[in-house]
Amino acid sequence: MQKKLKSLDFEAKILPTAGHPVVYAENLEAGKNKPTILIYGHYDVQSPDPLDEWTSDPFKPEIRSGNIYGRGTADDKGQLYTWIAAIKEIDKLPVNIKFLIEGEEEIGSKNLDEFIEQNKSLLEADICVISDSHCLTETQPVIVYGLRGLAYAQIKIKTLGRDVHSGTYGGNVLNPANVLAQIITRFKDGNHHVLIPGFYDNVRKLSTKEITDLEKFPFGEKQVLVETAAETVAGEKAFPVQVRAGARPTLDVNGIWGGYAGEGPKTIIPAEAGAKISMRLVPNQTSEEIFTKFEKYIKKITPKGAELVTERLSEGEPILMDTSSIYFKAAEKAYKKVFGKKPIYALEGGSIPVTATLKNILNLDSVLMGYELPDDGLHSPNEKFSLSMFKKGIATNIEFLKSLDKAR
Amino acid sequence: MQKKLKSLDFEAKILPTAGHPVVYAENLEAGKNKPTILIYGHYDVQSPDPLDEWTSDPFKPEIRSGNIYGRGTADDKGQLYTWIAAIKEIDKLPVNIKFLIEGEEEIGSKNLDEFIEQNKSLLEADICVISDSHCLTETQPVIVYGLRGLAYAQIKIKTLGRDVHSGTYGGNVLNPANVLAQIITRFKDGNHHVLIPGFYDNVRKLSTKEITDLEKFPFGEKQVLVETAAETVAGEKAFPVQVRAGARPTLDVNGIWGGYAGEGPKTIIPAEAGAKISMRLVPNQTSEEIFTKFEKYIKKITPKGAELVTERLSEGEPILMDTSSIYFKAAEKAYKKVFGKKPIYALEGGSIPVTATLKNILNLDSVLMGYELPDDGLHSPNEKFSLSMFKKGIATNIEFLKSLDKAR
Repeated sequence: MQKKLKSLDFEAKILPTAGHPVVYAENLEAGKNKPTILIYGHYDVQSPDPLDEWTSDPFKPEIRSGNIYGRGTADDKGQLYTWIAAIKEIDKLPVNIKFLIEGEEEIGSKNLDEFIEQNKSLLEADICVISDSHCLTETQPVIVYGLRGLAYAQIKIKTLGRDVHSGTYGGNVLNPANVLAQIITRFKDGNHHVLIPGFYDNVRKLSTKEITDLEKFPFGEKQVLVETAAETVAGEKAFPVQVRAGARPTLDVNGIWGGYAGEGPKTIIPAEAGAKISMRLVPNQTSEEIFTKFEKYIKKITPKGAELVTERLSEGEPILMDTSSIYFKAAEKAYKKVFGKKPIYALEGGSIPVTATLKNILNLDSVLMGYELPDDGLHSPNEKFSLSMFKKGIATNIEFLKSLDKAR
Repeated sequence: MQKKLKSLDFEAKILPTAGHPVVYAENLEAGKNKPTILIYGHYDVQSPDPLDEWTSDPFKPEIRSGNIYGRGTADDKGQLYTWIAAIKEIDKLPVNIKFLIEGEEEIGSKNLDEFIEQNKSLLEADICVISDSHCLTETQPVIVYGLRGLAYAQIKIKTLGRDVHSGTYGGNVLNPANVLAQIITRFKDGNHHVLIPGFYDNVRKLSTKEITDLEKFPFGEKQVLVETAAETVAGEKAFPVQVRAGARPTLDVNGIWGGYAGEGPKTIIPAEAGAKISMRLVPNQTSEEIFTKFEKYIKKITPKGAELVTERLSEGEPILMDTSSIYFKAAEKAYKKVFGKKPIYALEGGSIPVTATLKNILNLDSVLMGYELPDDGLHSPNEKFSLSMFKKGIATNIEFLKSLDKAR
C-alpha cells in the first residue's frame, strides 16, 4: 500500500503504534489555499471463521459473476481502494490529501487514539472521508451522519476446579453453563429491552423530523429478513426497524462456550463457561458509563458459588455529524451525478471508532461515503464487493474531490 | 490385550460389531460344575480435552508419587487389569472365566446390546463382575448395587441463515445464544428441580431403610466440595447429597457453543447455538420415556422464529441389583479380608449401560467391585490410578475368585 501510494506521488510511511502500525501518506501539492482531505481506511480484517463455509479461499480474492470474493473485499480494502483508484485518474489533485490507514479497526482501534493524539498536526485537515459503509442498492446511495458506539465485554463463570463427571456429581454442584444461561436471560426482557439499570438514562431523544426521515429509509422488516435469512424480525416493539437499527442502543451475545462441544457425548459438568457480550451505544451514552453499569449489574446477578471474571475487549463512542457543511453538500452532489439519485441520510448501526476520536481530538467531522451493498456479507463467510459498485465508487470520489477545488 | 489373555491360557478373539470390536476371551477349564464369571471392562476412553491442562502426555502413562497418570488409567484400563493380574497369580483357576471387553462404553455402548443379543450362549454366566467404580478411601471399599441410567441429547437452535454483523442487525433479529439461554433456564427451577413435565412420574420411592443406609454413606457436602473444588453444593433441597447422587434423577448441561469464542472481540450475531444435555435416570425411569418427554417439552418452549434440531446421542437404563446372592456375599468377604473393613453398599450416580443390558437379555446381575479413588479425575485432565489401590484390587479379586470354588 505504501508502494502504491508512493507511485502516485504521495509521501508514504509506515508509522509504529503499540499494536499494528499505521500507514500514513500525503500529497500537499495543491497548496495552503486548498482544503485538506483526510482519507481514513483500515487494512485489517475480521477473522475468516468459519472457514469451511467459504466457497473460495478468503485470502485469495476470486472474481465470480461481477463480484470479487475474499475477506476484506468490502470491509475495508476494496472500498479504501476506490480512493486510490480515483486519485490515479486525476491529473492534478485539486485538494491536499492525507491518508490514515490503520490496522486495528476490527479490534476496536485500540491504539489509534494515542496515535492521533501524538500526531495532531500531521493529521490536521478540513474534513475526513471514510468509505466503510453501504449503499442501499446499486442505484440508491447513502450518506451516514451518525454511528452507534460499542462496549464489548467478555464474561467467564467458574463454579468448579476442573471438569467433573456428570454421573458422580450431577445433581450436587452448580453448573456454570446453567449459571451463564441465567445471566444471559437477565440481560433483556421479552420485549428485547435491556435490563441493566440506567442503561437508557442518556439515550438522546430523536426529534419528530428525524424519526419521520428515518422511517422513510427503506431498511425495513423485509430487508432484514432477506439479508439475514431470519424467520422473524425481533426487537423493541415501540420502535420501527429503522430506528432500532440506528438510533436505539442494544445488547447482543456474540459467542458462548463451555464444556464439551465436539462430536458425540461427553459426560462432564464443565468447570467454566463464558460469553462475549457487545452493547451498541447511541448518543449520548458513553462506553465508560455503560461498561460500569454492565459490570455492576452482572456482579449483582451472579449467584453465590459462582466466580465471575469480566473483561473489557473493545469500545468506541457513538457520534452524530453536522450535515450542513460544504463537504456533506459536495458528497451529495457527487453521488447524485454518478448514481442519478440524491443520497439518503442515515444513522448506521455499526461502529467506526475513529470517527468519535477525530471529532474529540481534532474536531473533525467525517463524511461516510460507502459503496458496499447490504448483501456483501461483512464479517461473514463469502464476503464480496461488487465490481460495478467499485467503479461507481471511483467515479463518485473523483467528482467529490474535483468539486472541492473552491471549497476553501 | 488379546495377546496378554492368550498368554494366560485364554482363548481370546477380537469380534466385530457395527462399531469398535469386542475383545472376548474364555478359560473354561474349571469345568461345568464350577460357576462361570463374566468379567466386563472397556478399552475405550473419554476424549483427553482440554489437552493443555495435562501435566504429562495423556497417552504416555507416567508414574508420579505412587500414582500412574494417563487417560484410562482408572477408567477403565487400570481397573480391568486388576483381573488379568489376579488371574496371572492363580495357579489353577477355581472357576470358569469369560472376558467381555468392549470399545464403546464412553459413547453409550451403542453396539453392545446387539452383540450380546447375538452372542447369548457365548456370554452365558452365573454372574458378571465389573471394576469400573470407586472405593471411598484407600481403606473403605464400596459395592455398588444400583446405577443411574442416561439420556444424552444434543440441541441446536438456528435463527439466521449466516452469522451477521451485530452493528447492522443488532436489535432487530433473534439471537440464537439468547434463545438457547432461555431454554436452558427453563430446564430447572431455582431448587434444581427438573421442569420437564412428567420427568419424576416413574421415579422409584426409596424405602426408609434405604434412605437411612444411604445417609450413612460418607459422601457428603464436604466430599463434593473437596473433590470438585466447588464453593457451594447445589441440588434439590429436600434430599441429602448422598440421595441426590445415587437415587435422584437430574439434568445437566455438558457443553454449550455458538458464535465467536476465540481471542478478542468479533462483532457478529451467531447464526446458531447449541448445547449437549444429559439426564441421569433412576429406576423406574426409562431413557425412551425421558427422551420423549424432553423432546416434547423443548419443542414447546422454543420460540417462534427459532429452528430447533434435537438429536439423541447416548442412552443407558438405570438398574438395581439383588444384593442377597452368594456372589455379593463373596465380594463382601474378599473386600473385608484385604481392606480390613466391610464394604459399604452404595447407589452410584454414573451409568454403566452394559449392566442393564446383561440384566435384560441374560438375566445376569453384576457385582461392581471398583478400585478407583474419588480424586482419580475420571473424564478430567490428569486422570490417575493409585498403585496401592491397583495392588489391593488384585488381592481382592484373587480372594473373590478363590472363594467361589464351592459356589455352585
